[in-house]
Amino acid sequence: MGLRYELHYWPSIQGRGEFVRLAFEASDTDYTDVARGQRLPRQGMPTLLSWRDDETLLTPPFAPPVLQHGKRVIAQTAAILMYLGPRLGLVGRSEGHRLWTQQIQLTIADAVTEAHDTHHPISGSLFYEDQKAEALKRAKNFRENRLPKYLAWFEAILRRNKSNARAGRLHLVGGSMSYADLSLFQLVDGCLYAFPNAASAALRDAPLVLRLHDEFSRHKRLQAYLRSDRRIAFNEDGIFRRYPELDR
Amino acid sequence: MGLRYELHYWPSIQGRGEFVRLAFEASDTDYTDVARGQRLPRQGMPTLLSWRDDETLLTPPFAPPVLQHGKRVIAQTAAILMYLGPRLGLVGRSEGHRLWTQQIQLTIADAVTEAHDTHHPISGSLFYEDQKAEALKRAKNFRENRLPKYLAWFEAILRRNKSNARAGRLHLVGGSMSYADLSLFQLVDGCLYAFPNAASAALRDAPLVLRLHDEFSRHKRLQAYLRSDRRIAFNEDGIFRRYPELDR
Repeated sequence: MGLRYELHYWPSIQGRGEFVRLAFEASDTDYTDVARGQRLPRQGMPTLLSWRDDETLLTPPFAPPVLQHGKRVIAQTAAILMYLGPRLGLVGRSEGHRLWTQQIQLTIADAVTEAHDTHHPISGSLFYEDQKAEALKRAKNFRENRLPKYLAWFEAILRRNKSNARAGRLHLVGGSMSYADLSLFQLVDGCLYAFPNAASAALRDAPLVLRLHDEFSRHKRLQAYLRSDRRIAFNEDGIFRRYPELDR
Repeated sequence: MGLRYELHYWPSIQGRGEFVRLAFEASDTDYTDVARGQRLPRQGMPTLLSWRDDETLLTPPFAPPVLQHGKRVIAQTAAILMYLGPRLGLVGRSEGHRLWTQQIQLTIADAVTEAHDTHHPISGSLFYEDQKAEALKRAKNFRENRLPKYLAWFEAILRRNKSNARAGRLHLVGGSMSYADLSLFQLVDGCLYAFPNAASAALRDAPLVLRLHDEFSRHKRLQAYLRSDRRIAFNEDGIFRRYPELDR
């Protein structure tokens, strides 16, 4: 039996942890969502928090999500996915495929940060209500400039990927599912939740991105996950928040 | 003779391209800073811009910096450094070292984005003057919360790295220079330029980070680079901008 994958992440939001959860779920890999379980000893966020002061831990996480795999403790969503990719069969074998998949992932991560900053443009330590005036401005820029620009780039990638000329599911890299596909699904899903008007409108100019989202939402294992109680519902504590005033 | 490394980046700022320039300079690697040179055909930003509409390019860059190496076209600073690391001897050989170096790099990238957003908290398409009120607030949070938090994390890494107990230059990972060291040097250098008061104060609580910055500024090849005209001076078009009102 291999080492167990343990994900440490806030138990009440999808957040950045969701990109890791999707990789496990779509590849049918057994994992423990530590802060949400009660079965193992050392479960819950206290483990994560204890790492900050544990001088014996040579690779301290800056912030969750954190993956523990045997002795390895890895933070940063994109680094976690880079580690999991080959192990879960979610990235191609060549250096070119791995690099390109990671490059797309890093750009998705940038888009996620920008989506987050629409409701927290000043500080993560302040409430939304205390930075709402600034949020209205930043969200407008995200809706009108940034989101369409990101979607146009993903659309170009999907259009240029020759494997997509064949029948079957669309992919960002080559002809099989990668962690970048799953992350793009999640980015689109989150934007459709947070900005139903703006995201629907922007996706009209990115039909392949919309199709990828639709296809992955019907992917057998993903669909089962999305309908299960393991999928935390979107809510206004996470990255993608539905504040109607930010979507008009 | 190997393939030539070509960096495509804005010619008038350090920006994110500087993290790549430092990797080449510190490893004494020959490269072309395309937009700044006049020697080769196809030089200048037009090459970069043409990629956006070139349907034959399967890995289009979302934004500069972009590295071209033979047929490879790679964007995203951290992905470029991940590619260059083993080739330039700027990362350890083990998977553990490579992953940890990249994880640190991604956290430096987050800090760089936050430093940028101090002067552009609303939109990159607007002038600073048009978002100055918001910038004052965001910069305050960066100075008081974020910068000290990032520095404390780098400090913990340097303190826990057992190789640093030996005499000689400090390193983030193992006992030799990595691209993460160079990027941390640049982050600190930029913060000292943009926030001379706040960064100096914060570095008093991160003495090892300050020492790493000092040591690398005296590194033979880096020092020669920093004093040459290849090093673009910090200015108010880049990521790190000295606006006195954001530093008090």
